[in-house]
Amino acid sequence: MKSPTDPGRRRLLTSGSAALAAAGIGSVTRAVAQTPAALAAAPQAKPLPAYVSWKDAGSMIVHTPTTIETKRTAFGTSLITPADRLYIRNNLPAPDVSIVANRDAWTVAVDGVRKPRNLTVAELKTLGLDTLATVLQCSGNGRSYFPSKPSGTKWTVGAAGCVIWSGVPVRVVAEALGGVAGGMQFMTGTGGETLPAGIDPKTVIVERSVPLKAMEDALLAWEMNGEPVPHAHGGPLRLIVPGYSGVNNIKYIKRLAFTASETDAAIQRTNYRMSPPGTKGSPSFPAVWEMDAKSWINSPAPEAGPARAGWVQVTGVALGGVNAVRRVEVSLDGGKSWRDASLVGPNLGRYAWRQFVLQTQLKPGTYVMASRVTDSQGNVQVETSPDNAGGYLNSGWRSHAVTVVVA
Amino acid sequence: MKSPTDPGRRRLLTSGSAALAAAGIGSVTRAVAQTPAALAAAPQAKPLPAYVSWKDAGSMIVHTPTTIETKRTAFGTSLITPADRLYIRNNLPAPDVSIVANRDAWTVAVDGVRKPRNLTVAELKTLGLDTLATVLQCSGNGRSYFPSKPSGTKWTVGAAGCVIWSGVPVRVVAEALGGVAGGMQFMTGTGGETLPAGIDPKTVIVERSVPLKAMEDALLAWEMNGEPVPHAHGGPLRLIVPGYSGVNNIKYIKRLAFTASETDAAIQRTNYRMSPPGTKGSPSFPAVWEMDAKSWINSPAPEAGPARAGWVQVTGVALGGVNAVRRVEVSLDGGKSWRDASLVGPNLGRYAWRQFVLQTQLKPGTYVMASRVTDSQGNVQVETSPDNAGGYLNSGWRSHAVTVVVA
Repeated sequence: MKSPTDPGRRRLLTSGSAALAAAGIGSVTRAVAQTPAALAAAPQAKPLPAYVSWKDAGSMIVHTPTTIETKRTAFGTSLITPADRLYIRNNLPAPDVSIVANRDAWTVAVDGVRKPRNLTVAELKTLGLDTLATVLQCSGNGRSYFPSKPSGTKWTVGAAGCVIWSGVPVRVVAEALGGVAGGMQFMTGTGGETLPAGIDPKTVIVERSVPLKAMEDALLAWEMNGEPVPHAHGGPLRLIVPGYSGVNNIKYIKRLAFTASETDAAIQRTNYRMSPPGTKGSPSFPAVWEMDAKSWINSPAPEAGPARAGWVQVTGVALGGVNAVRRVEVSLDGGKSWRDASLVGPNLGRYAWRQFVLQTQLKPGTYVMASRVTDSQGNVQVETSPDNAGGYLNSGWRSHAVTVVVA
Repeated sequence: MKSPTDPGRRRLLTSGSAALAAAGIGSVTRAVAQTPAALAAAPQAKPLPAYVSWKDAGSMIVHTPTTIETKRTAFGTSLITPADRLYIRNNLPAPDVSIVANRDAWTVAVDGVRKPRNLTVAELKTLGLDTLATVLQCSGNGRSYFPSKPSGTKWTVGAAGCVIWSGVPVRVVAEALGGVAGGMQFMTGTGGETLPAGIDPKTVIVERSVPLKAMEDALLAWEMNGEPVPHAHGGPLRLIVPGYSGVNNIKYIKRLAFTASETDAAIQRTNYRMSPPGTKGSPSFPAVWEMDAKSWINSPAPEAGPARAGWVQVTGVALGGVNAVRRVEVSLDGGKSWRDASLVGPNLGRYAWRQFVLQTQLKPGTYVMASRVTDSQGNVQVETSPDNAGGYLNSGWRSHAVTVVVA
């Protein structure tokens, strides 16, 4: 398969971001594109950093240069999150953009198979092709709703998106190399970020292990939403582990290994562990792997100001983690009573989110609106997720409820 | 539902295109983003016009300022065509961009119902919500493959895309207004373009009638691919008639009427008619409405130069018009023999296209590759479409075959 040409606006902005800044584009964007409510919040808004200046500034909340979330009001109702509205969370700064100058030449070392070897993206493209929609969600999405106020980025709901990937199934790659070697229990991916000098690499390297079974539906992906994977999102090549939280989806993957044990990199050993508030993470606590069943309401959004009385479409998104979505209920009274919402739009598969809608008539007043998903295995979204030191995997419907004024 | 904020890069480019041009962005895009084969063709490439300068220049072929197609090499394999790679075909220049300054205030007049009235987009959003993937394809896509060389834009395969729309079903709107009035046979949409002065409006107005049955799955759409419908693609509000060719999907729709007869606008009466080569169109010839079953190969693309011998993924897209896709076959010998391809990726519904893949091993040589789709009703893509004066609806597999050199 030939690689599609790179999206110009991405490339040009890596080369031309200074020129764009000179053209005063940030301010034009903010002045023209935002809703009145967003404008009111504009004074404290941080500008997009240069490497993602091609994103839609009016749709994003910039926490830091490497942590940027999608506004609740920017998700829309068309299932797929466009690249220019997709969140960013990088554990290290991205490698130099020169790595996408020749995408097909990017090389991944495959280990822990019977015939280990290096494979270029060009070679991967000859092995097989699959296309998959997945929810990409930062492990810390929803962190700001935990009562213990864990340290880390104060994500609300926007460190998540639903994205279509194309690439080669990991299992096809493993088969082509003789199959997974005996005794392997994990799939371990290593990112291609440049590590800061003078520091023990283990303390900073982005290297994650997931249970071997996760390889079944995993992809080595070179395309996202119909374009080569943007550099900021892990291009030329990203490991996609469907149903697993963002950190397990290794960007700029340079090594894919089947291993007997988990990596001892800090990001695996002590970070991204479900340890109680106030404790340090360690391998004795569960790793942050599979996502939980979770849903939230995107509209009416409190951020958009009072909603109008009368007929209202209450909309949102629901995911089942590694399972498909079966049902979504919506409450307009803080969880006292629930009504079935409709699932609308194409079903993009078990790893994608579904969009739900409840049409209802609302009188003026204040409503606490919540949503609750049930997955195909009968698992119901929890009322409250266990608080934890890292603020990971918050999917409790109660803390995700929105208070909407209807006028 | 609250309207998501407008994509900044679109808005800013209407305000800031001069600044962008000054920043030399067109040339940066071309220099960095294109494949070697595309670079070789670069000298004759026309730049993107200012109103769509936010599109990915490296992915597009600019025929004229209002006719711009997607390169075969830019479709990728992730089903959805991103906005910045989607073709443009406007019968008239777009109305002033000020019409998207307040999208919710855009008004459409609904006639031919029991209680006709004007509805704003804000009001439409209270009535209902659906999300639908459709193939949007210019009626003249494939025109350049007709032997009679009809006049008009010389489209190859790229005046088409697969897009996700959100909006309110037309049937819900009609029901809310008392239902369609008696005796109506057609759904007639009128675009909001500014008509040139001093010309009989009937000769230029964009007003199309489709059979009444087409209303069943039609949408009044305010969102495309998760963003407000871009102005260049018909925002704030576009009529989507799934399975019908592009011209029937009215941009900036200002009037939606159920009518007893077809409009007598020239675009309906004499244009977009299936009249034989050399004849003038008239109501005695079939109108260009439903799309036919059609497929084509995107990779290997002759435009990308010789393919590499060995394992190759032959990929492409297939649509069934108003029916779902059931099967795709691929021929590597100009139609002498056929092999079943696999349908991969999420099924986005009957009006979307499917992506197909045939994995095969190729020795050096020259291959005439063709694809042929069968829809859910058993209709097989034709070998040759009837040539016609307007060069419409070309879906013949033979003329769409690609000659690929494998080295």
